[in-house]
Amino acid sequence: MRDFIVLMGAIAGLAICGFAQDGGDAARAAIRKVIVEQEAAWNRQDLEGFMAGYWHSNELTFFSGAHESKGWQAALDRYKKNYQGVGHEMGKLEFANLRIEMLGPEAAFVRGEFHLTMSDGKTPHGLFTLVFRKFPEGWKIVHDHSAGE
Amino acid sequence: MRDFIVLMGAIAGLAICGFAQDGGDAARAAIRKVIVEQEAAWNRQDLEGFMAGYWHSNELTFFSGAHESKGWQAALDRYKKNYQGVGHEMGKLEFANLRIEMLGPEAAFVRGEFHLTMSDGKTPHGLFTLVFRKFPEGWKIVHDHSAGE
Repeated sequence: MRDFIVLMGAIAGLAICGFAQDGGDAARAAIRKVIVEQEAAWNRQDLEGFMAGYWHSNELTFFSGAHESKGWQAALDRYKKNYQGVGHEMGKLEFANLRIEMLGPEAAFVRGEFHLTMSDGKTPHGLFTLVFRKFPEGWKIVHDHSAGE
Repeated sequence: MRDFIVLMGAIAGLAICGFAQDGGDAARAAIRKVIVEQEAAWNRQDLEGFMAGYWHSNELTFFSGAHESKGWQAALDRYKKNYQGVGHEMGKLEFANLRIEMLGPEAAFVRGEFHLTMSDGKTPHGLFTLVFRKFPEGWKIVHDHSAGE
């Protein structure tokens, strides 16, 4: 009986840690869903929907090539300017070669490729590293490092 | 007594999770040490020492701009070719603006800047995102995304 109680306590301790019993499969699926929804939002020209995948915080960081920027609102404004401003277009976005790796019960990082197809036939593309954290409202990107050609 | 036993079990469960009692300060210090040692190794032209900070695995990944490469040995070979080959030099390396953020008891990511100073006065520089995992042999970089100018 005492062993059983200790075991129950240990399980409670593990539960506090929040370790998924499935080795992270459910978390990986939830993260993949965030990314797939971002892709869909982009392709319906919904930048607010796209930005829903990011942590709504001034602490959110973006590294783009050698340029660093900070904050959710600034990112949305930048996307609007660069992709919806006069003479700009969003193109068709596809993510590829996604590799979602859990770093604990409440963190993960994602490696992948982005491919844009523009109406003039140009295809900007590149690599990204995303760091995800689990918040009460779900999995969100807290850091985005993207570099393209 | 039963409560005490449950508590002990819970503590055991938490210990299994390995959560640091200091909120990650010791882990952050250990990670900073890896990075400082890499900088020192680079500046004494010791590429093997520099590479000691990376996970010695074929699964180690490097994103450099829009180029992806894989594996510890390939990385060492590439560094040797690009920085110790004929007509090349390593320059003086400085890391700056390091931000080490824990993602759990056994994972962290690091944002920072690299600055090289070459003998001809050129100063290649850029940003990096490093993902660290804790292994029995210590904290190692498992993924490096660097982009420069």
